[in-house]
Formats: sequence, structure tokens, C-alpha cells
Amino acid sequence: VSEADRIAMLARVLSMGGHATGVATGIGDDAAVLDLSSRPPGHGRLVWTVDEQVEGTHFRRDLASWNDVGWRSVMAAASDLAAMGASPWGALASAVVPSDVDDAALEAFAHGQRAAADVIGAPVVGGNLARGPVFSVATTFLGTCEAPVLRRGACAGDGVWMAGAVGLAAAGLASLERRARSGAANEPPDSATDAAVEAWRRPRALLASGRAMRSVAHAAIDVSDGLAGDAGHVAAASGVQIVIDASALRDDASLVRAASALNADALDLALYGGEDYAIVAASPVAIEGFRCIGAVVPGAGVALRDASGVRALAPRGYDHFTSGKP
Amino acid sequence: VSEADRIAMLARVLSMGGHATGVATGIGDDAAVLDLSSRPPGHGRLVWTVDEQVEGTHFRRDLASWNDVGWRSVMAAASDLAAMGASPWGALASAVVPSDVDDAALEAFAHGQRAAADVIGAPVVGGNLARGPVFSVATTFLGTCEAPVLRRGACAGDGVWMAGAVGLAAAGLASLERRARSGAANEPPDSATDAAVEAWRRPRALLASGRAMRSVAHAAIDVSDGLAGDAGHVAAASGVQIVIDASALRDDASLVRAASALNADALDLALYGGEDYAIVAASPVAIEGFRCIGAVVPGAGVALRDASGVRALAPRGYDHFTSGKP
Repeated sequence: VSEADRIAMLARVLSMGGHATGVATGIGDDAAVLDLSSRPPGHGRLVWTVDEQVEGTHFRRDLASWNDVGWRSVMAAASDLAAMGASPWGALASAVVPSDVDDAALEAFAHGQRAAADVIGAPVVGGNLARGPVFSVATTFLGTCEAPVLRRGACAGDGVWMAGAVGLAAAGLASLERRARSGAANEPPDSATDAAVEAWRRPRALLASGRAMRSVAHAAIDVSDGLAGDAGHVAAASGVQIVIDASALRDDASLVRAASALNADALDLALYGGEDYAIVAASPVAIEGFRCIGAVVPGAGVALRDASGVRALAPRGYDHFTSGKP
Repeated sequence: VSEADRIAMLARVLSMGGHATGVATGIGDDAAVLDLSSRPPGHGRLVWTVDEQVEGTHFRRDLASWNDVGWRSVMAAASDLAAMGASPWGALASAVVPSDVDDAALEAFAHGQRAAADVIGAPVVGGNLARGPVFSVATTFLGTCEAPVLRRGACAGDGVWMAGAVGLAAAGLASLERRARSGAANEPPDSATDAAVEAWRRPRALLASGRAMRSVAHAAIDVSDGLAGDAGHVAAASGVQIVIDASALRDDASLVRAASALNADALDLALYGGEDYAIVAASPVAIEGFRCIGAVVPGAGVALRDASGVRALAPRGYDHFTSGKP
């Protein structure tokens, strides 16, 4: 099948037609064209991000379906918009496709992208297709927002609020890796790690939570590389210390159950596990849909408070997930 | 050197500070933020594209410096905006960096991006950094335009107008490959292929030409994959035939000289050579900075007119450059 046929297939799977508001030209020209007059008044800022998923770094074919890979690529990119409180408008996807990825795999990938885009309510309006030795997809998302919530701005006295789970996706990946090693990849998943596997394979960009925090949060970030590290980015940008309550992290029954099945430490998974795409915000007041997991205090870095006191956390990324945002 | 240090280096090299109009938040947050109120009135449409350069597919380390790779990645993406008649606003770059690309190489790459962005007048405002086995960079460019020029719209009776060269970059690459095969990669280039090598290593997005055609052209495209193939996209989208005059393509002294040095056919290079980023437009009137290379007639596909008559050209892409736009 030719490159042109593949592009036609992608256009067919991804095009939302009349459903895409403000998309003047979608897939099939030199560039996509968006009509600014379609945006509601007050959306005076564009919020724009790019994220990349690389085979071998972010996923393995034996642990995720091609549909999962497409879904994850869209959600991971959209999560950056959620962390700013922005409303997504559309995405472009640039895929590098090796010769051993056949048309059925590429179509399953596109269906995964489309399913995620449908949930988000923002279409993939274009992209690029190139050949290369390793599969990768760079997804760029554009959204709008009146006043984006940045990483800087957290104040001593704010609470630390979190929407979504942390550690669960890492537990899911660990469970999948363990099953693959033991040759049991095709067995039904252990019910104790069901939720964890689902968290890793089908993460959600928490866009509604992002919009809920927009009017009150002083600072926010999405947790893609682990809570300790990502909270550290907010602490550094804001010139404060973030103190996390261990008890709040141990409160997740799905995580505790999955950690137990894996003989892993739930707190370790929660602090250092990546790719759940929780949103962590510093706010002086409660935020709907968020739970309080700590406090912002004068100082620097990230600390953990438990029964034995408060101790600083060394910055340590999650091994599998090494993306960073310039 | 840590990922954080690399991101800090990229931010230092790429940040334009006060020079970047309408960039509210640049490198270093979850997403870049652009201020719509900074755009001049009448720029009511966003034009948005992504292009990807992959090691082994689009460049080889022994044929291009890391600085060249950075330059080419920015210009290739910006060229799509030129083809729409849009004014570039800014870019995001998502790089996959293998472990054998050291900090000096990555910094040289960033300096190449920066040099191209300076020439274009639009900054790199963010991006992503990931590990992977093969170097690649996906560059997404955002621009604005009142009325983008699409691929569809060419009418029988229009002239076919071209700004920039075709075939020269392919001749330059062929020259570099020949020197590499003969072990003479470090010798000074043959003066007959100087211009060709420069065309491949340091292409230019023809943004001023794109703006010049904006008010008169019915349709346009940039030549990234070869004139015959890219003119074919315009013909297909517009429902017309595009007839190219062979004599107009043989008129380029640099191309003829380079082709002769390579024992290659200048016309073949001009029709099928990629990556010059010429702009081809269908227009009822002359366009400043463009020369006439043919005519739009009723029919389908692309044809070549020479002394012996008119013959249809079979669609054939340039072997080295296999990107396509979904």
C-alpha cells in the first residue's frame, strides 16, 4: 500500500467532518487552518504543547495494543493542556512508521487516536508520516484559555490538591512486564491489578479537572514523570517547598491492592510512578474534584510528611519515562 | 549531564526573550502560551503544520552537521506556512535523542534551529525531549493568515508559477553521497556542486514569496517531495492538469552545472528531486519573485511539454524523501 493510500486511511479514520468547530481546513493540505472567530470571547490565549511516545522508551508492542498506543499518545499530549486549565481545540500527529508496522497496525493506532480525540472533544486535524527504523508519534495539541495556570505562582500557605491517581499506571506497567517475563502475557489480568493495567493502557487527560481549578489555583502541573519530580518543578518555578502527606497517597485502595499483588511499596509507586496524568495544583481553597495531599511552605524542593516526621525527597525520575519538556 | 541540564541548555540557546512578540510563556512550563491580542487585525486564521526529520531517512551524520540538521528541521516545517501564504508565529520542537548524541551535538543542533528561527523571525517556544534509539525531530509551526492559499483552487487558464529552485538540493545530496562513498567527504566541495550542496544543507522557507502570492494565487504547494509529485497534489485537489515546460526547468545554470558534474539529468533532478522547498502556485497573473514554468489546463495529473510534444508524467516520489502529510 502506498504512502498516499495510508494518508487517505488516516484521513478517513481521523476526520470528524462537521463535528470539528473552527477547523477551516483539516487533513490533506500543506497545513491545517483554524478559524479564530470560532473561539468564544475571553479565550484570548493559545496554549500549545507537544509530547512524544517512542517505541522501546514509552511502550512495547507486547505490552500495549496499537489502539492503546494511539490513545495514549493523544491523552499524554492533551494532559499538558489540562494542567494549564485550557480547552483543547485540535491536534496534529507526526508518526514515524517502520516497515514492520503493517496497514492493520497503523489503522488500529489511528482508531486509538480517534477514540481519545472523541472523548476529549478535539479532533486530529493533520500531521505527518515518515519512514524510520523505530515507531514514534509526536502529538501537538492546541487549546485556548483566558488565564493559563503556570508552574510558578504557588504560595506558602496554599494547599496541595490533586485530581486523579498516582502510581497506578506504574503498577499496571510493572504487572504487564511481570506477566510478559513469565510468558503469561495472554492470560487474563490479575483482578488485583486490573485497574492498574487499565490506568497505564488507557490514561485520561483530566481536562474537566483542569478547568475546575482554573479560577482558583495559583500553580499546577500534570504528573507525567512521577509526583515527586513533577511537584519539584512547581516548587522550583515558584520558589517554595511542597510537603506531601504520605497518608494521602496511601489512601488509594486500587493502588494499595496492586502494590500488594506486586510486592511493591504503594508509596514508592505513588511518588515515583509516571504516566497517570494526575493534576497537582497549589490553591488557597478547596477545588471541586481534587483532594488535599499536602501543603506549600517556605523553602525549596519536595518533602514527605509521615508519622515519623518530615523528610526531603531526593529528585528521582521514573525509570521508564524519561520525557522532559524544554 | 542530566535531562534537566539539557533542557536548560536548549532554553538558553532557543529563547529569544523580548524579541518574541505575542509569546506570553515560552520554554519551561507544561505548554507554551501565545497571546492572540498581539496579532495584527485581519490575521483571523491560524495555519498549523508539523514536519519530521529522521536520521537515516532525511539525513545522515556524515553528510550534514548537527547545526545543519537543526536548521533544516525548522526550515522544512516553516515551508508549509510559506506555501499557504501565512506569517510564522512560533514553533515547538520534539526531539528523540539517542545516547550517542552528546551534549555538544545537541547544542549544535539547537544553534542550527535558532539560526533558522532568527532568519524566519519566529522563535522556538517549547518542545519535548525523549530518549530513543534513533535521532528524530518533529517541528510544529504555527502562523497566521487572513486567507490561506490551499492546494485546491487552480483553474484551467492559470499560469504555473514557481519561486526558488528545484533539483538543486537533490544534486547536492547526490554530490555529498558520492564524496562519502569515495572517502573524500572532508575534501572541499567541487565548485560545480557548491550551490547544490548549500541548497541541501541550508534550505530556505520562502516566506516572503508565500506572502507575495497570497493575494493572487488560486492554489499553491511547497516542493518537498519533488516537483512532479507535489504539482500532482495540486492537480488532484483542484481537478485540473498541470503542464510543466521542460525549457523553464533547464533554465537554472546552477542545476545544469551540478547535473553535469554528477553525470545526471538536470530535468530528472528538477522533476523528482526533493527538499528544495520551492513554492509552486497557480495564478491568473504574474507574481513578484516567481517565474512561469507552465500552465493549468483541463484534465488530470501532471504533464511535461518539450520540443517533442506533451507527455504525461507518472507519479514518482524522490527516493530519499518519503514524508507525506496526512
